[in-house]
Amino acid sequence: MSQWLPTLITDTPQEGYELAVKLSRMTVKLTQPDAEARDKMRPEYAEDADSLIAVSQVVATHFATVAAANGYWKDR
Amino acid sequence: MSQWLPTLITDTPQEGYELAVKLSRMTVKLTQPDAEARDKMRPEYAEDADSLIAVSQVVATHFATVAAANGYWKDR
Amino acid sequence: MSQWLPTLITDTPQEGYELAVKLSRMTVKLTQPDAEARDKMRPEYAEDADSLIAVSQVVATHFATVAAANGYWKDR
Amino acid sequence: MSQWLPTLITDTPQEGYELAVKLSRMTVKLTQPDAEARDKMRPEYAEDADSLIAVSQVVATHFATVAAANGYWKDR
Amino acid sequence: MSQWLPTLITDTPQEGYELAVKLSRMTVKLTQPDAEARDKMRPEYAEDADSLIAVSQVVATHFATVAAANGYWKDR
Amino acid sequence: MSQWLPTLITDTPQEGYELAVKLSRMTVKLTQPDAEARDKMRPEYAEDADSLIAVSQVVATHFATVAAANGYWKDR
Repeated sequence: MSQWLPTLITDTPQEGYELAVKLSRMTVKLTQPDAEARDKMRPEYAEDADSLIAVSQVVATHFATVAAANGYWKDR
Repeated sequence: MSQWLPTLITDTPQEGYELAVKLSRMTVKLTQPDAEARDKMRPEYAEDADSLIAVSQVVATHFATVAAANGYWKDR
Repeated sequence: MSQWLPTLITDTPQEGYELAVKLSRMTVKLTQPDAEARDKMRPEYAEDADSLIAVSQVVATHFATVAAANGYWKDR
Repeated sequence: MSQWLPTLITDTPQEGYELAVKLSRMTVKLTQPDAEARDKMRPEYAEDADSLIAVSQVVATHFATVAAANGYWKDR
Repeated sequence: MSQWLPTLITDTPQEGYELAVKLSRMTVKLTQPDAEARDKMRPEYAEDADSLIAVSQVVATHFATVAAANGYWKDR
Repeated sequence: MSQWLPTLITDTPQEGYELAVKLSRMTVKLTQPDAEARDKMRPEYAEDADSLIAVSQVVATHFATVAAANGYWKDR
């Protein structure tokens, strides 16, 4: 697999949040490598409130890690 | 996308909580960019106790991050 | 909205726990501001074991934050 | 309400775990103060694997807090 | 109840993981002390993917605590 | 059981993420040691969006631990 996570350090909190989203999605790619199967699931969760809330929970967990890694961007 | 997260630092715990709410909602916007589709889901979760509890869990996770970033506003 | 969260500091662990309960409930108020709609949901979750367990999870997450903010009330 | 949480400090990890169980159950008592209603729910979750796993998750979250409060009982 | 948790310190990360599994299971034993009732539930969750994922979540939470207690076994 | 977790230290964040995936899967192996039973469950969760999101949550929790163990790979 190619390099997709060289560092947890980002310039801004917003980029850190985007990295958290990326970290969340990567598990799905690793667990279900078939892109077609993933595409078939997309409407299933993108239009379901509870699925979207669950995705938000994963992002929140990764964001905590990324924020700690960046010292919470306190000097900004 | 415009800048929506310039900093994790807030003046008060209450503003920190409001930021946690914002951080929770942003994943939904990024995963389901179609505003109409999001509006259709709103009654689905705003009137469902379990969905609201799940949203509260996401907020709690983000609030932990924001609170740590602010040193728990200890000097207040 | 009025001030409802002036500080995370409490005198005792028990008051910290009560604050965690308050922090948990506030998301529901902010997401579903209609008091009548909230009242209608109350029996739905207060008599459902799984909903109550989910509420407990939210409280546990907030309690972790409040406890850290208070240095775990170690000098008590 | 009487004092039920004077401190997070315990002598042993095992007592810390028991405190985490107590912290988990207290939310249910505060949210559903009717003891009879709680008793009616007990078979519902005590014989349901998924409910018991969810309870375990709450305990795990509280145990993390209690363990941190006790410095992980490292000198034991 | 006999002593089952004398310490959180383990020699290796792997033993720490095994302790996390033990910590996860103990809540079920404390909440449902009837061994026969527990045995009846076993097939229910051991053959259900979502239950197993939920168990994994509990273990992950306890492993975080055990790993922190052991300073992440960094000197290994 | 053979040694499968000698250390939490990895060279890169990406290897840390892969270790988090491994840590997530190991609970399933320990709880359901029958490989055939596990294989039967695979399509059940690999094609179900909500199961994949739940797996992502477990990975996120383990990644937090691995990242902390590695000092967030800050010197990279």
